[in-house]
Order: sequence, then C-alpha cells, then structure tokens
Amino acid sequence: MDDQTPRSGELWSPEAFEAAIRAVGAERYHDKHAFHKLLHGGKLNKGQVQAWALNRYCYQEAVPRKDAALISRTHDRALRREWISRIHDHDGLGAEKGGIERWLVLTDGLGLDREYVMSRRGALPATRHAVEAYVHFVRQQPLAVAVASSLTELFAPSIHRERIVGMLENYDFVSEEVMAYFKRRLSQAPRDADFALEYVKSHATTRAEQEACVAAVRFKCDVLWAQLDALHHAYVTPALIPPGAFVPAA
Amino acid sequence: MDDQTPRSGELWSPEAFEAAIRAVGAERYHDKHAFHKLLHGGKLNKGQVQAWALNRYCYQEAVPRKDAALISRTHDRALRREWISRIHDHDGLGAEKGGIERWLVLTDGLGLDREYVMSRRGALPATRHAVEAYVHFVRQQPLAVAVASSLTELFAPSIHRERIVGMLENYDFVSEEVMAYFKRRLSQAPRDADFALEYVKSHATTRAEQEACVAAVRFKCDVLWAQLDALHHAYVTPALIPPGAFVPAA
Repeated sequence: MDDQTPRSGELWSPEAFEAAIRAVGAERYHDKHAFHKLLHGGKLNKGQVQAWALNRYCYQEAVPRKDAALISRTHDRALRREWISRIHDHDGLGAEKGGIERWLVLTDGLGLDREYVMSRRGALPATRHAVEAYVHFVRQQPLAVAVASSLTELFAPSIHRERIVGMLENYDFVSEEVMAYFKRRLSQAPRDADFALEYVKSHATTRAEQEACVAAVRFKCDVLWAQLDALHHAYVTPALIPPGAFVPAA
Repeated sequence: MDDQTPRSGELWSPEAFEAAIRAVGAERYHDKHAFHKLLHGGKLNKGQVQAWALNRYCYQEAVPRKDAALISRTHDRALRREWISRIHDHDGLGAEKGGIERWLVLTDGLGLDREYVMSRRGALPATRHAVEAYVHFVRQQPLAVAVASSLTELFAPSIHRERIVGMLENYDFVSEEVMAYFKRRLSQAPRDADFALEYVKSHATTRAEQEACVAAVRFKCDVLWAQLDALHHAYVTPALIPPGAFVPAA
C-alpha cells in the first residue's frame, strides 16, 4: 500500500462517504425488486395492488413514530425543530391532513375498507416485523446512524416518478387523486434527504461511524426489500397467504 | 361492607378518579416545597435563583423529548396530532421560538452564560437523574399511564401565577420580559391538562389502570420535588454543592 491509498481504517472524504452511501441504493434499493417491476408495469391484478397498498400502510404509519423516536433522543433543539417537519408531513398539522391521510385516499380508491386498513389486521406478519424493526433501530442506534437510516430518501424520487406514470398508465382503478401521496413526496423527500446527508457527513467523524451509517442505509434497504419479498411470496409466487392476512376477492 | 360501598377493586366513577388524581396535587405538588416558598417570597439571593434557573432548564429541555417519546409509541394518529403541539410549545415551530428559548431569556436575564446553561454541565446530578427518569417513564409505561404523568399541569397555573407575582415583586434582577415563559404557560397548561385528563378518564378502563394513573401523577410530583430537594441541599441548607455543579459568584 503506498501513501496515496487510504488505509482501511482511515476517515473517508465527504465525497467518498457520500459515494459509499449512494452505492447501497444502486445495489439494493427496492426499485430493483421483482414485485415493483410487476406493480409499475401493470402486471398485477387489483387484489394484488390492494395487498401492496394495505401492507405499505403499515410502513407509512411507522414513519412518524420512528421520527418521534429520533426527536425523543436528542438534546439538539435545532435538530428537533428540523426533524419535526417529517412528522408534520405524515401526520399533518392543523388543517393539513398529511401523508397518511393521502395514503388512505389511495386505499379508499382501491376499494379497501378504511377501518380494516388502519387496524393493520390484514397486513403480513413480515411487514409488521420489518417496520417495527425500523422503529427500534432508530430508537436504539447512535444518533447519526439513526439519521442515516432515513437516507433511502435519496433514491425515492425516481421510484415515485416511475410509479406515478406506470400505475396511472396501466391500471384503470388508479386515478390522479389516488396518486397524490407520491406527488407530494417528490418535493418532500429531496429536502429531507439533503438535510440528513449533510447531518451524517458532519456528525460521523470516524471511519467506524461512517461505515455504521452506510450499514444503516443497507439495513433500511433490507427493511423495504423484506416487505416486497413477503408480498411476492403471499400474493404472486407461490401465492401462499399466511393465516389471517388479507385475502383478495375472487 | 354494604352494597353501597364500592369494593376495593371496583372501577372508580370518572368523578372519583379525577378526585383521586387531584388529591395527589393537594398532597405533594412542589408548590408546597420549602424551596419554592423561599423563591417566591424573595428569600433567595441572586446566585440561588441562578442555580434554580439553570437546573430547571434541564427539566424544560427534557419535556419535548418525553413528549416525542410518547408520540413514538402510539398508533393513534389523532393522539399524535394533538400531542405534537406540546413539542411546538417547547421547541417552537417556524418563527415561533418556543418555551425553551423563553427559558433561556430568563437565564440570560439572570446573567448566566447561555452556552453554559445549555451544556447542562453545571446542573446537579439529581436534577439530571430526575428529568431522565421522567423521559424513561413515558417511554416505558402503558400509554394511558404515560399520559397521566403529564397531569401535574392541572396544578401548574396557580404556582405560575404565584411565581410571576412573587418574583417580580421581590427581586430587582427579575423583569416582566424574563417571566414571559410562565405567562405563556398560564394558557398552554390548562388546555393540555384538560385533554390529558379526558384521555386518561376514557382509556383507563380498569381499577388497576386507574390506580396506575394516579401513581403516575405521584411519580411525576416526586420528579419535581426531588429537583427542589437537591437545590435546597446544595444551595440553601446545608449548602453543600456537589463536585462540578454550578457555584454562584461570591
């Protein structure tokens, strides 16, 4: 190893650190999952899209809880004041009803009963385990690592754009109104991701911390991927629905 | 025991439950503590008031964290949307800087260095232990019990009114501006307390849960009382300041 090559334990430059984070998305963000290709390509029937939407509700519903968990852990008032806007985005604030409500407009539009969706009764166990694993991760990991786990938002806008176009084009049961959730996220996600990226760049100050942040993005990609694996297994192939989970109308 | 006497394990009526909660305040809310009588009666010197203000900062700073901990635990979106206003009250929202900032106006006015106050370095260990015990309690107890621990707010307006009058009258180093925190709490605390009281009344549905809620109010009174015990011991009698804690100028 010559003097020009960073040693393995050496701090990454901000550029190398960001590149390592982005490489995780290129490798394993859930836009690459077979289920998403089916969803966006119009290859699913309405029952399968319903299954996706009601399972994904559990994830939506977990997000403000994990953001509150993060706020509950920091003495940094400026960070709390910034991060709370994520809770507003999902739960709404005052007259603004928020992203979870927009998600329920989507499940309404798919003909699902709102009380049933909100009860999470029909969701797959693996969905619930995955989203709660995310909440626990944010509650327990070092703060910069917890912040880093949000960085899948760096990769979200392209999947949302693909989803809006693909679902509107391919499904007659999907309308513009129903896709409002994703349109809103096109502007929210980049704002949040920029802040979080700058935060981890300035707060991960050892190579070990930087690597833990990259691992957090990998963990989060796994959380997203595991949800699609479970959907694919239950509703596509081999289409084995676990006991108690949502069964589409015949 | 005749048929008119409720058995010991029987559910309290809403009125009896509320009365049991209010009885805790009458018995042990910190308005009865010797240190508060000295504070409000103008019997403390400036160094002692400084010690009170910088220790109490730790409590102020813990409150939005315990409120976020509560939000992080509930699937009830309506509860989260209501409870988040407590975080806004303390951390501010947008241009509104919030109660912690108003507390720092108070410590500024007392001539304390802001960075020192915010570092919590000079606070008594017992203060830090008490406020973190509160955060942990809210993170871990059943939700209605966690909500109940906020109910000392039922007793707060009278102590705040007494404090505003007493401190303005008795200390030439205390101004109207400096007391802004307490004036704002006069309207915030009753609104929050009313909501929390209705919440515990409707969500504590067994006598055991009701008693756990009453115990939560007692726990919270202990958290407040212990902070004043520590201040009294360190700065009044026997005036033994622990290593590392704030030492008033001679």
